[in-house]
Amino acid sequence: MRRPLKSMNAMSKDSNGSAGVHSERAERIRERFGAHGIDGILVTSAANRRYLSGFAGSSANLIISGDRLILVTDGRYVTQAGVQAPEFELAIHSGPILDQVALSVADCGITNLGFDPKLTTVADRDSLHDSLDSRRKLVAVTGLVEELRLLKDEEEIASLRTAIGIGDAVMAEVETAVKPGTTELNVAIMIEQQFRLKGGSGAAFPVIVAAGTNAAMPHHSPTDKVIEEGESVVVDMGTTVDGYHSDMTRTFCAGGPTDQFKEIYAIVLEAQMAAIGGVRPGLDAAQCDGLAREVISTAGYGERFGHGTGHGVGLEIHEAPRVSATSADKLAAGMVHSVEPGIYLPEWGGVRIEDLVLVTDNGSEVLSKYPK
Amino acid sequence: MRRPLKSMNAMSKDSNGSAGVHSERAERIRERFGAHGIDGILVTSAANRRYLSGFAGSSANLIISGDRLILVTDGRYVTQAGVQAPEFELAIHSGPILDQVALSVADCGITNLGFDPKLTTVADRDSLHDSLDSRRKLVAVTGLVEELRLLKDEEEIASLRTAIGIGDAVMAEVETAVKPGTTELNVAIMIEQQFRLKGGSGAAFPVIVAAGTNAAMPHHSPTDKVIEEGESVVVDMGTTVDGYHSDMTRTFCAGGPTDQFKEIYAIVLEAQMAAIGGVRPGLDAAQCDGLAREVISTAGYGERFGHGTGHGVGLEIHEAPRVSATSADKLAAGMVHSVEPGIYLPEWGGVRIEDLVLVTDNGSEVLSKYPK
Repeated sequence: MRRPLKSMNAMSKDSNGSAGVHSERAERIRERFGAHGIDGILVTSAANRRYLSGFAGSSANLIISGDRLILVTDGRYVTQAGVQAPEFELAIHSGPILDQVALSVADCGITNLGFDPKLTTVADRDSLHDSLDSRRKLVAVTGLVEELRLLKDEEEIASLRTAIGIGDAVMAEVETAVKPGTTELNVAIMIEQQFRLKGGSGAAFPVIVAAGTNAAMPHHSPTDKVIEEGESVVVDMGTTVDGYHSDMTRTFCAGGPTDQFKEIYAIVLEAQMAAIGGVRPGLDAAQCDGLAREVISTAGYGERFGHGTGHGVGLEIHEAPRVSATSADKLAAGMVHSVEPGIYLPEWGGVRIEDLVLVTDNGSEVLSKYPK
Repeated sequence: MRRPLKSMNAMSKDSNGSAGVHSERAERIRERFGAHGIDGILVTSAANRRYLSGFAGSSANLIISGDRLILVTDGRYVTQAGVQAPEFELAIHSGPILDQVALSVADCGITNLGFDPKLTTVADRDSLHDSLDSRRKLVAVTGLVEELRLLKDEEEIASLRTAIGIGDAVMAEVETAVKPGTTELNVAIMIEQQFRLKGGSGAAFPVIVAAGTNAAMPHHSPTDKVIEEGESVVVDMGTTVDGYHSDMTRTFCAGGPTDQFKEIYAIVLEAQMAAIGGVRPGLDAAQCDGLAREVISTAGYGERFGHGTGHGVGLEIHEAPRVSATSADKLAAGMVHSVEPGIYLPEWGGVRIEDLVLVTDNGSEVLSKYPK
């Protein structure tokens, strides 16, 4: 295939943002310049540049100065950038992109340019340092854009709802498909197909369909294993709409629930409901994790829940906040995160139940509606 | 879904490398230590760590010292690492991975640790610098592993052949499916499904199915556009086997070729054959590009071929060598790269034809066999 290759939605589907939303986001970035001693910022990551500009292509940098918004990209993206990022001026490079970045930074009169050391390679930092004239300085600023992305605005929540609605609809097909005699792979193929047919971007991360003892494995990829009567089947899947992810897990028992399945399922569901019930602004994410963990531990399966309770979801499938025992994050209205406790028994299988919740002013709203 | 999420093949499918192949590759890395003034190297990228260890999980670092091979990962990967990377000792971290890396580096007695500044963020470099005791130094070394990966060994070529064979088989289904009345999306869904059913990993990059004027757009994603009689349809697709990619493009004319299609197709095919015919060890990659470009320019469409002629393919879908007008690479036996000229006419559509070729001792072998 041609360079570059990364996933790019069709332009016609990229309706994220009415006119002005990106300028408003940029304005909120500018409000933070003073605190960091910068008068401009370089934005390099795909999620951050999409959030700030609307541009969904695979190769670009943004420069935000006090009074200008510049999207640096190459000639292949002129049309797309014009459609997706109309609030940004275009600067087209034919040589190395950072050479053009340096020129545009000078053109904006930026003297202290923020860059994120967590998102910039040593080679790129050095190259940019060499390209900038001596009046310009690079200033390390971590997570400035991610800080805004943490609290979803109305546009974002609308895209998330659409993606999650597609997830609900596809899970209904999954429940019908998970029958003794089919294979993990057949179910996975159907999911990938249904995500596209129902208007999503396809599977946004590798679909997990894990039956029987496979369901006890943390990172199982679907195989041609035949699903047998009485086996637990963990299905974890998501798609995107306008770049925003859905993410849902349900666990079925092929051919109808066995007693052991019912027992384990009831514990996981109680744990999930306990954690969801606690979600509210001001709660430590670690406490949210604890609410789920306590139910599972009390039932005697604490050692069998070997992962965190959840993670933020948005333009990235994993973003802040982290909902785990060691998280330092605190929940706040506007965050969207998963709640997905599980119990995994190597000799038997596993159960995981996952929904996405929106933290609201006085509690939470469960965004995924599929029965559990 | 659970962290981490990145694609991981089922362990049972991960047969890349007989016992010893990874130790041999590590030995070739060690031979280069002296020239760079290092006595150990840190390997962080997914492709490089898979190449050197066999480990296909989503989170790990490798340390190669003069006499030890260490894979640093977390508890979730103990089983998988044991199966996939038996030639490596495991060092399991529960806190930050770079803290464990620093401990293992000290344990190996490494004093000058190579790291790749193109693959290491500023934050990680700084964090590692802080974690290492004062007797250890970090030394920037660019592209040491990529240098080895440039020339494919027998194991790698075997995996590439298998992946490319699946691509050939799926393209046969595509040719049948591309008929007036179907949609781009239907064809894309079929491709994704067929890659899985025929033993690949699914689509390894977003499938391109572009019909009519969409075929003139460099980065078209499949939509529900109905394919009409007489439209050119560009199909660009690939899968992986053991992590190695296939990558092939064919262009069809729905309902049978029109005169304009025949004319453009003949030029692109002539350009592709000219470039393939020139491939041999010692040829400048830029000259290879020039062979294709000259045919298209002579036919009067030089301005309508706006991308490079090809790129290397292996564990990454885009790797060295670059086959473009500005490339400084020189072809050598063992390289595998695409040859994929195209002509794009905004008012009409486009034609691109792509195969993967292996540079041999006295020329090249076209690895993809589908008719064109």
